[in-house]
Amino acid sequence: MGYCLFTLLIFLSFYAAAEASHCATNGLPILRNISEIDQDDYGRPGLSHTTIAGAIMHGFKEIEVWLQTFSPGTHTPIHRHSCEEIFVVLKGSGTLYLASNSHTKYPGKPQEFHLFPNSTFHIPVNDAHQVWNTNGPEDLQFLVIISRPPVKVFIYDDWSMPHTAAKLQFPYYWDEKCYQTPSNKDEL
Amino acid sequence: MGYCLFTLLIFLSFYAAAEASHCATNGLPILRNISEIDQDDYGRPGLSHTTIAGAIMHGFKEIEVWLQTFSPGTHTPIHRHSCEEIFVVLKGSGTLYLASNSHTKYPGKPQEFHLFPNSTFHIPVNDAHQVWNTNGPEDLQFLVIISRPPVKVFIYDDWSMPHTAAKLQFPYYWDEKCYQTPSNKDEL
Repeated sequence: MGYCLFTLLIFLSFYAAAEASHCATNGLPILRNISEIDQDDYGRPGLSHTTIAGAIMHGFKEIEVWLQTFSPGTHTPIHRHSCEEIFVVLKGSGTLYLASNSHTKYPGKPQEFHLFPNSTFHIPVNDAHQVWNTNGPEDLQFLVIISRPPVKVFIYDDWSMPHTAAKLQFPYYWDEKCYQTPSNKDEL
Repeated sequence: MGYCLFTLLIFLSFYAAAEASHCATNGLPILRNISEIDQDDYGRPGLSHTTIAGAIMHGFKEIEVWLQTFSPGTHTPIHRHSCEEIFVVLKGSGTLYLASNSHTKYPGKPQEFHLFPNSTFHIPVNDAHQVWNTNGPEDLQFLVIISRPPVKVFIYDDWSMPHTAAKLQFPYYWDEKCYQTPSNKDEL
């Protein structure tokens, strides 16, 4: 029994150390190999997401950089966020759907933009948008840069859902693991 | 004479339109081909700099993204800036020199980091640093992401120059073309 408890404690301490290395808000190494940084699909089959530089994960305050790969048919939800966002397409092709008319009550029919390797696009603050790999069989891969991290994402079921009905997802899926809930939660 | 004046006016209007397309603070297209965006060496032989998304050039407020290629032997000046900065190395190799001890009066002997393809590195706010393509014959290419644009760069002659003697270069070389001097300059 004592031996089992000891083994469990050893296991838990290793687990805690591994967790800490993924949530490096202090002491992030200056230089890292991107292929050694955690990637995951975060429950979206066909997605590979890597937070290269993150606010919640690494302690950056003003910018965040992601590497994302979408297999054919993979797409983001229709969503908006109140930050600047810039994409740099590294490989593959796809479609950006962008509802630029944020002044109406719902996104409405989006414009379509055909993405290609070595293209760049930006999302105006708060415009609803969706990115698809619509052009299989190749993967679509890009870097995503956002301001005002961590990202607060409002998700729409479709393009005619009112802005006020879009659902806030916070922390976002890749931020959940390192997100520290307010310390007074135990007092509730 | 009248014909010449007319030709000159036509020429000037085309020139103004071309300038406007490079300094697109309003109406930046959502999607662009990076290879069609202006690149220049800005007086530094061996450099190719492209502002993919810029504050002065394109009207972004919170983030800026550059694509830079350094031919063998090419390097930045030793410099510092008060912003977050993240690099993503796309190809080639080189060396980052980083003086992390910002608390002394001058940068001092820097640490060296060996850069490689698919590596990422960040520069802590205000730390003096320099990036070299030290490993020819290949080009070193990376994306650079900064916060708090436009960048205000303080340049050092060497690692023992006092922080207070570093010279401010503003606007920085690639921002000069689109930089609007304060409108009251004519009143001086």
